[in-house]
Amino acid sequence: MTALLLIDIQQGLQEMKFYGTERSNPDAEANCSRILNAFRDKNWPIFHVQHCSTNPASPLHPSKEGNDFHPLVKPSEHEPVIQKNVNSAFIGTDLETRLKSQNITDLVIVGLTAEHCISTSVRMAANLGFNVILIADATAAFDKIGVDGQRLSADIIHHAALANLKDEFAKVMNTTTLLKELAD
Amino acid sequence: MTALLLIDIQQGLQEMKFYGTERSNPDAEANCSRILNAFRDKNWPIFHVQHCSTNPASPLHPSKEGNDFHPLVKPSEHEPVIQKNVNSAFIGTDLETRLKSQNITDLVIVGLTAEHCISTSVRMAANLGFNVILIADATAAFDKIGVDGQRLSADIIHHAALANLKDEFAKVMNTTTLLKELAD
Repeated sequence: MTALLLIDIQQGLQEMKFYGTERSNPDAEANCSRILNAFRDKNWPIFHVQHCSTNPASPLHPSKEGNDFHPLVKPSEHEPVIQKNVNSAFIGTDLETRLKSQNITDLVIVGLTAEHCISTSVRMAANLGFNVILIADATAAFDKIGVDGQRLSADIIHHAALANLKDEFAKVMNTTTLLKELAD
Repeated sequence: MTALLLIDIQQGLQEMKFYGTERSNPDAEANCSRILNAFRDKNWPIFHVQHCSTNPASPLHPSKEGNDFHPLVKPSEHEPVIQKNVNSAFIGTDLETRLKSQNITDLVIVGLTAEHCISTSVRMAANLGFNVILIADATAAFDKIGVDGQRLSADIIHHAALANLKDEFAKVMNTTTLLKELAD
């Protein structure tokens, strides 16, 4: 059984000045939405993961509008929402128990950000024994200042994050390829 | 209480052709050894993590010489060895239980590789509530082929991995800075 895990696709992840100076892949949310609709059409299990930051300054703090889901991927009434306050969707939540109780062995993972919560959740999902498919163009990254003070662009951070996850933790593909496989 | 976690500093991590075409930071093992000796001098807790791959082709499979610890960081008789077979030192092991039972709240983490087992273990340690200090020049990375088929150099992979962990998951510093702090 395959489930879709949508991670942190919230309005606050549009706020550049909190997370960096640029974000890769503006199409991420639209691709997440296409995949969400495909899972709804198949009536396959869907889990929305919502980051509820404990930092009052964060755009993802529950007191902020940024905590809300992005309008393109709002959960339907019967779709479970898993709230977390660390990067991994598996720590401080009952996600692993829920997945295993539903005999879910395979996870399609999409969302934000590639380098933080996606990388952490994909790594942990794989190490817990799930087969992970990560959708490259349904994720995005922010730029970072390296330990040497030099800036790493959002594209380099995104590419490096995907390259580190590929094969070791996940099969990586694009939205179009996944949708074609789901339609077959 | 602060403990040192030495992750996967094994002979097999010298085998370029299995992991990539180049490795960053040839001084990683020597820096790990300097830090290990500083913790021994202080009589602070030390945990050696050993990767025991389930893949018979891996240099880290228990049947291979590569599974042995690097000669610079061989565990002393009384130092605990935690064996794992996934990237995270916290999955399938009793490491978290051991650390918490010894009231260890802070972890200095060193070892290999920055992008796989170090990144996974640092992320999980931080999300489990430990304060993590990651020693940049006591880690190393291999190059990778990205999802677009382009090669990302070992240095870029190393820098991006450290930049993603910095501040979000760990305080990042160099060996010399840590040794100075320990000596104060």
